[in-house]
Amino acid sequence: MVKQTLNIGLIGHKFMGKAHSNALKNLNMFFEPGAMVNMKTICGVEDDIAEAAARYGWKSYETDWHKVVEDPEIDIIDICTPGLSHCEIALAAAKAGKHIICEKPLSMTAAEAGSMYASAVEQGIRHMVNFCYRRVPAVALAKEIISSSRLGEIYHFHAIYQQDWVDESTPYVWRFDKKIAGAGAISDKGSHVIDLARYLVGELKEVVGMTDIFLAEHQDPVSGDMKPVTTDDAAMFLARFENGATGNFETSRISTGYKNALRFAVTGSKGSLRFNLERLNELEVYFADEDKTTQGFRTVLVTDAQHPYVNHWWPQGHIIGWEHLFVHQYYEFVRAIVENKAVQPDFYDGLINMQIIEAIERSARERCWVTL
Amino acid sequence: MVKQTLNIGLIGHKFMGKAHSNALKNLNMFFEPGAMVNMKTICGVEDDIAEAAARYGWKSYETDWHKVVEDPEIDIIDICTPGLSHCEIALAAAKAGKHIICEKPLSMTAAEAGSMYASAVEQGIRHMVNFCYRRVPAVALAKEIISSSRLGEIYHFHAIYQQDWVDESTPYVWRFDKKIAGAGAISDKGSHVIDLARYLVGELKEVVGMTDIFLAEHQDPVSGDMKPVTTDDAAMFLARFENGATGNFETSRISTGYKNALRFAVTGSKGSLRFNLERLNELEVYFADEDKTTQGFRTVLVTDAQHPYVNHWWPQGHIIGWEHLFVHQYYEFVRAIVENKAVQPDFYDGLINMQIIEAIERSARERCWVTL
Amino acid sequence: MVKQTLNIGLIGHKFMGKAHSNALKNLNMFFEPGAMVNMKTICGVEDDIAEAAARYGWKSYETDWHKVVEDPEIDIIDICTPGLSHCEIALAAAKAGKHIICEKPLSMTAAEAGSMYASAVEQGIRHMVNFCYRRVPAVALAKEIISSSRLGEIYHFHAIYQQDWVDESTPYVWRFDKKIAGAGAISDKGSHVIDLARYLVGELKEVVGMTDIFLAEHQDPVSGDMKPVTTDDAAMFLARFENGATGNFETSRISTGYKNALRFAVTGSKGSLRFNLERLNELEVYFADEDKTTQGFRTVLVTDAQHPYVNHWWPQGHIIGWEHLFVHQYYEFVRAIVENKAVQPDFYDGLINMQIIEAIERSARERCWVTL
Amino acid sequence: MVKQTLNIGLIGHKFMGKAHSNALKNLNMFFEPGAMVNMKTICGVEDDIAEAAARYGWKSYETDWHKVVEDPEIDIIDICTPGLSHCEIALAAAKAGKHIICEKPLSMTAAEAGSMYASAVEQGIRHMVNFCYRRVPAVALAKEIISSSRLGEIYHFHAIYQQDWVDESTPYVWRFDKKIAGAGAISDKGSHVIDLARYLVGELKEVVGMTDIFLAEHQDPVSGDMKPVTTDDAAMFLARFENGATGNFETSRISTGYKNALRFAVTGSKGSLRFNLERLNELEVYFADEDKTTQGFRTVLVTDAQHPYVNHWWPQGHIIGWEHLFVHQYYEFVRAIVENKAVQPDFYDGLINMQIIEAIERSARERCWVTL
Repeated sequence: MVKQTLNIGLIGHKFMGKAHSNALKNLNMFFEPGAMVNMKTICGVEDDIAEAAARYGWKSYETDWHKVVEDPEIDIIDICTPGLSHCEIALAAAKAGKHIICEKPLSMTAAEAGSMYASAVEQGIRHMVNFCYRRVPAVALAKEIISSSRLGEIYHFHAIYQQDWVDESTPYVWRFDKKIAGAGAISDKGSHVIDLARYLVGELKEVVGMTDIFLAEHQDPVSGDMKPVTTDDAAMFLARFENGATGNFETSRISTGYKNALRFAVTGSKGSLRFNLERLNELEVYFADEDKTTQGFRTVLVTDAQHPYVNHWWPQGHIIGWEHLFVHQYYEFVRAIVENKAVQPDFYDGLINMQIIEAIERSARERCWVTL
Repeated sequence: MVKQTLNIGLIGHKFMGKAHSNALKNLNMFFEPGAMVNMKTICGVEDDIAEAAARYGWKSYETDWHKVVEDPEIDIIDICTPGLSHCEIALAAAKAGKHIICEKPLSMTAAEAGSMYASAVEQGIRHMVNFCYRRVPAVALAKEIISSSRLGEIYHFHAIYQQDWVDESTPYVWRFDKKIAGAGAISDKGSHVIDLARYLVGELKEVVGMTDIFLAEHQDPVSGDMKPVTTDDAAMFLARFENGATGNFETSRISTGYKNALRFAVTGSKGSLRFNLERLNELEVYFADEDKTTQGFRTVLVTDAQHPYVNHWWPQGHIIGWEHLFVHQYYEFVRAIVENKAVQPDFYDGLINMQIIEAIERSARERCWVTL
Repeated sequence: MVKQTLNIGLIGHKFMGKAHSNALKNLNMFFEPGAMVNMKTICGVEDDIAEAAARYGWKSYETDWHKVVEDPEIDIIDICTPGLSHCEIALAAAKAGKHIICEKPLSMTAAEAGSMYASAVEQGIRHMVNFCYRRVPAVALAKEIISSSRLGEIYHFHAIYQQDWVDESTPYVWRFDKKIAGAGAISDKGSHVIDLARYLVGELKEVVGMTDIFLAEHQDPVSGDMKPVTTDDAAMFLARFENGATGNFETSRISTGYKNALRFAVTGSKGSLRFNLERLNELEVYFADEDKTTQGFRTVLVTDAQHPYVNHWWPQGHIIGWEHLFVHQYYEFVRAIVENKAVQPDFYDGLINMQIIEAIERSARERCWVTL
Repeated sequence: MVKQTLNIGLIGHKFMGKAHSNALKNLNMFFEPGAMVNMKTICGVEDDIAEAAARYGWKSYETDWHKVVEDPEIDIIDICTPGLSHCEIALAAAKAGKHIICEKPLSMTAAEAGSMYASAVEQGIRHMVNFCYRRVPAVALAKEIISSSRLGEIYHFHAIYQQDWVDESTPYVWRFDKKIAGAGAISDKGSHVIDLARYLVGELKEVVGMTDIFLAEHQDPVSGDMKPVTTDDAAMFLARFENGATGNFETSRISTGYKNALRFAVTGSKGSLRFNLERLNELEVYFADEDKTTQGFRTVLVTDAQHPYVNHWWPQGHIIGWEHLFVHQYYEFVRAIVENKAVQPDFYDGLINMQIIEAIERSARERCWVTL
């Protein structure tokens, strides 16, 4: 069998561009999704794009994304730009018949996301939104456990995602500007936990929440002026899932001492589990159906060959890092392209995610429950 | 100086009666609150009251609480009965001029609590509601740290209190009956975390929440019939504190794998802390003002002589158990009586606590924010 | 059935005297060993003995231990004095036909321990050395698990007991003087882990070790002079058990940051377990015979009614403190007296323990393996 | 400035060959050691060498290592073969003037290691033995803390390295054969903890230890015969460091439940620290010179830009995996070549490491202390 080669064009070369480039290199070395992925073109508007292309291993680079999208040799467009341009690029790429993987959140608004999803369906392409935490081996294991009914009926889902990259001394950045960033913690971090909730437990039915700006302004590092913050520092919301479970969500970027602390817990009638992104190689699990005298939460080191994705990496007990989630995500995406099958999280997931974020913002504004 | 002796009468001799009796014995042995407490009379209606009195070290026993309240030699009435009778006993005790310590929640309704508080103030007695978790050394240390401003401005308070004593196979008990228990998890467990929130962060301004019954009926162990549950299995609510902090609360009695898992976290502009009742001798603390390379949450083993209450017990590293919180509570109460000064948590705290619970229940019922 | 009453006389009223008095009060209230224990006489030579007797709940006090030992009404002698006088008191008590419970280590020398054991056997009394950590519910559970063969063949036993009560600024105390204390860390702390090793795994066959004095002198708080240290600050030894398992032991009183950190781990062919005294309500257990994908060490909160001793205390998840180990120890001792049966750890265990300590000291001195 | 390019030839293409190849790809992308490393030739004797070369990104491959060593264009030889051939390859490579990085342990015997070290010195090449755990950011941070004297005088070093890849059902592999593997746990795992001890605390002065074979034979997967085991399943030893500190070491490959559990602890007069390879992004640190009421071990998440190596990777809180240690190691090695300076761990470290392993084996055999 001749192995297929897929050419990829990556739009955006900063933090996420680096992470995606790294993942692509690892993909070919560690996984066999059925096709080789050729790192054809990277695109960026800053002066360092040439150097980044060389350093990251791209065959060529561009400074105008239209050229990448229009390149007939390219099969996949990977969108790593800020959210403002996601929709425009994705619509163009879909129109050009490219498969698309897009960073999260999918868009600035649910309306944009809706058009992106419609376009993707219409064009019959593969589409993915990069909620990468579904691809943590421990999270994929959690999904397996829940799907197997070992936890019984799910009663409660909690998730909290705290970081502390913002304090009074933080210089003004684009993430503080609603016009560019769309939203703050609820979008940047909250979108992840919303996706995990839907992945692990199911669809949400209704939400009530609040959003907050605690630090009203930050100093512009160029002008020295104080500039107002228009995105939320923190957000919380309660939810009801369609299956009756309760949801409790919180996210904050001003949580002193928490570096990248995404934690969730699932509580069911027959068992429970817990996860912490800062210890992403571990999953804590409790089963009620065991001998009473030795029951307790187990700390499973999710690094055995039996565990999702792990057999591609190292022997047991040799932990993997955060960036490998992107490799796993690409693995699923390329397999879906090769095998011509659906893959999640896709633009539909990105759309629902945006709808939930907008519902929370409306709930916070109007101080009411909002039905989804 | 002649040391005072205070006679105490305890109403109720089951779980809490046992815990209080134990605390009184420890009080005289390990603490010096300025008075000896004489365990004069215990009161209970079941047949085993005589045996309990002997076993727990009481001088005498009664089966009618009125006699205890009316005993002119008794200085303190300790109310450990189910919530239904708290108000009646307390009003009678206050009228008789007794100092009162009452189990939590203070009453069945905020209205009852209001009358209890008014009566206590009018009679000029010392009054306390036994929210004992204020007296965990680690919690008292948390209070000291927050009061010293080392955490800066408080941004977030989270608390979750999970147990798993209820599942499908649990026989019907009085706690499932709203008429007797008042409420379920929100009252039995939620009242504790509400009190901790007020103690550590300040007054709440508004709440929005939901309550749930997941297991609609349990089998009556006597009749064998299935009986309906009218108290909540779980409750969650969001809150705003008057100082602007956000509050996130959850409580559940059906959380498989969680035995007595009251956990809270306080996040401030300069530091954060965390507590877990199942490891009540520990407090986790983070300070932002330290050398960046070695910052991290510390696990403080709160068993040194410097720590609150600890110098009365054992050398460093020798942990104490849950029941000692009651000893510390009595210590504060008796000191307040001897020194004729106010002491918290008092009936006012009990009243506010009931008002918050009622506000949450109303919020859950009417699906709206409720201002306190 | 008439319930028996046993009169007890306690020699020593300081730290251990306080702990034992507390345990006796709890025994009658929480346990039913088949007899009531009457706290008849406490004995101490300092001026505060009268106050201690009153505070701790003793009927009478003495300043001469001979009078207690000779009191015909007394059934049990409890020896809480420093090690120097254990042997003399125990021999007298045995001769007087009293049952004896004695603090650890049993004596100053193995020779003394031998005579104490011989005398106890000869007089037909019940005898116990208070290695109280056998009575931690989690440790008793560990014993049950090992005895049930769920861990398979035992390969390794590790134990480390670290404290930090000694540093350069510590004033001179009697524990630094070999003539009074017998030995340092190897005796005070090491004796505990040696006892746990024998309890959990079996008899030792041979040892090789080293002992160290790191801080050669401390200032006498009275004279202000520096006084030399003649007991070990730290000790380590390797061992072979008779069943072939390996043993690794370490103890230190100068381990900065460790408050009362006795930890042990048992590794077997089919499972493993771990314990830490600073979290004494927990036991970590791993079983190899389970589904590979969810294997991991479980943290068992040893507070359920199924667990050893726990049903006498509080509901699940309500942790107990260090001092309750003494209650459990008394419970076993009194039951043995009432039921006229052997109980461990007894003077034989105390004797073997002393022999092992002496073997380690000899090994350290002669730099060789020593066969037991 | 023209950036140098260094051509590398890698001998061995299995587990370690894969890990090294991966590290080289990452090196050029994430680090700037002053030279680009060109992955010129990989060498292996199995049939899959061509595929591995392509998959891992090598320009060419060979099946005879002599050709790689003799290739005049190659600057660096990386030895990833089993220990049997380390010496021969290294001597040839040194003679050819190549810089050498060699997997651990350096050789089969200390004598071999001595000749390798002598040859490297004589040829004036850069040489490194790949004890990669020095390059864990948390371990490098531990080294910084100890070097800064914040822990004061070091009293104790403990290290334990447990895995469970061997049990009764494990098929026979070459690691069970002393003639090929040299030794068992003491070499494969023990060499790592010995290196960490020397790196963090200093040179050892003397050792006493024991080695064990618990599972005497395993079934040959080809012949079906049981074959005897001649390498140790487990080893333990005590040590004295030249600076007076005590050392306690244990390693085992039959420790049920432990996947890759290398843990060490350093205890000093002013502070202590702890590390666990299964949570390699964390370091626990205790400082004695802080406010007594909030002292405790901190869990430092070693993922900040201030921490060693971390600024080359991802933002704070985004943990890295085990394989990145190899990238850091290469980074140090290439820098040393470019800057023409010494680098550790070098062949001298590899030599001392072998001497210590041989001393432990002799101590186990002769049952005595062995001076180094």
